[in-house]
Amino acid sequence: MTQGVAGRTGRGRRPGRPSGGASSTRSQVLAAARRAFTDRGYAGASIRQVATDAGVDTGMIRHWFGDKAGLFRAAMEPTVDPDQLLAGVLDGGPEGLGERLLRRMLGEWDVVGMPSPMIILVRSAVSHEESTVLLRTFVTDQILRRLSGVLGEHDGPLRAALVGSQMIGLVMARYIVRVEPLASATVDQVVVAVAPTLQRYLTGEIAGG
Amino acid sequence: MTQGVAGRTGRGRRPGRPSGGASSTRSQVLAAARRAFTDRGYAGASIRQVATDAGVDTGMIRHWFGDKAGLFRAAMEPTVDPDQLLAGVLDGGPEGLGERLLRRMLGEWDVVGMPSPMIILVRSAVSHEESTVLLRTFVTDQILRRLSGVLGEHDGPLRAALVGSQMIGLVMARYIVRVEPLASATVDQVVVAVAPTLQRYLTGEIAGG
Repeated sequence: MTQGVAGRTGRGRRPGRPSGGASSTRSQVLAAARRAFTDRGYAGASIRQVATDAGVDTGMIRHWFGDKAGLFRAAMEPTVDPDQLLAGVLDGGPEGLGERLLRRMLGEWDVVGMPSPMIILVRSAVSHEESTVLLRTFVTDQILRRLSGVLGEHDGPLRAALVGSQMIGLVMARYIVRVEPLASATVDQVVVAVAPTLQRYLTGEIAGG
Repeated sequence: MTQGVAGRTGRGRRPGRPSGGASSTRSQVLAAARRAFTDRGYAGASIRQVATDAGVDTGMIRHWFGDKAGLFRAAMEPTVDPDQLLAGVLDGGPEGLGERLLRRMLGEWDVVGMPSPMIILVRSAVSHEESTVLLRTFVTDQILRRLSGVLGEHDGPLRAALVGSQMIGLVMARYIVRVEPLASATVDQVVVAVAPTLQRYLTGEIAGG
């Protein structure tokens, strides 16, 4: 679904436009799109307004990304590379996995002024069917597949879904709804409070015996 | 903010309309509004379409509730009575509080075909500033105020926010994004997996020493 977007950049380059310029313009468009989807959600964002913010015309955005759904997929692309996201997290084995996972995620989310694709995805998932599917796939397939070496085969899917529920809830409470004092808690405070939850969902007792 | 809406029902009754009819029509409008806000979120729902679904004209809805924001507040009203929601939950003291709280919430959310106000609120909170404030108020003020007899004064707000984060995440994962196998897990399965998280957030160790 998302492949081909990057490849289209080169073909979409306007005649006479230097390659570096096109690439940096594309980055500006994607940055503007992430801001728009973050601030207004999928339904509220518009190609016209992303074009204005990025200083390009709407025709260029349509040429590169097709429609709003295509622009959304391209803006979400970094989300769909969990290999990079989880690099180093899984290496240490089950012990401390909850904390390493949480610290990596908070590192992604806590960057000021740079909306994280996962925050956009959670924000959009409630109103936009494609985002719902993307978020579901990300949680069940992408996260689970990489955790499966650590989690049991039997209850792995439920463990991954539980981790997803707390992760999504943390994104909502800390970054979108901004429930205090969680919204302004330090990374270390969040880790002390929430990492044991993730660790238990990953490796602890989650089913009645 | 929400007071006066119920009182307006009587005054908004059309001349010649029997009282019982107005009251049941109002219920139909609110039920249609809950469905619309649940299915389409705040931005996607429209008074026109709620009127069509409820079999009334838009003028009657505007007369009763003012604008879409007024209709939304009225549809959310049950959310803002946590006394009824938490009746019996707090009576047993700290022990088992996480499980009692979770069972009561799941009992609210798991009613098939009847969208729960809290699910609508979570769904709307990401795209609608007023919903965000309502949800934040519900978590920090309404839940916290009632838990404060059980939680410590010092870290009570953080405990309530953590409970809120897992509750919101559970609503998202189970009812909105529908992550399997969490979406179709039984109430007992969810309780065994998630109640210990809530119990720890409520009464356990959540801060480094």
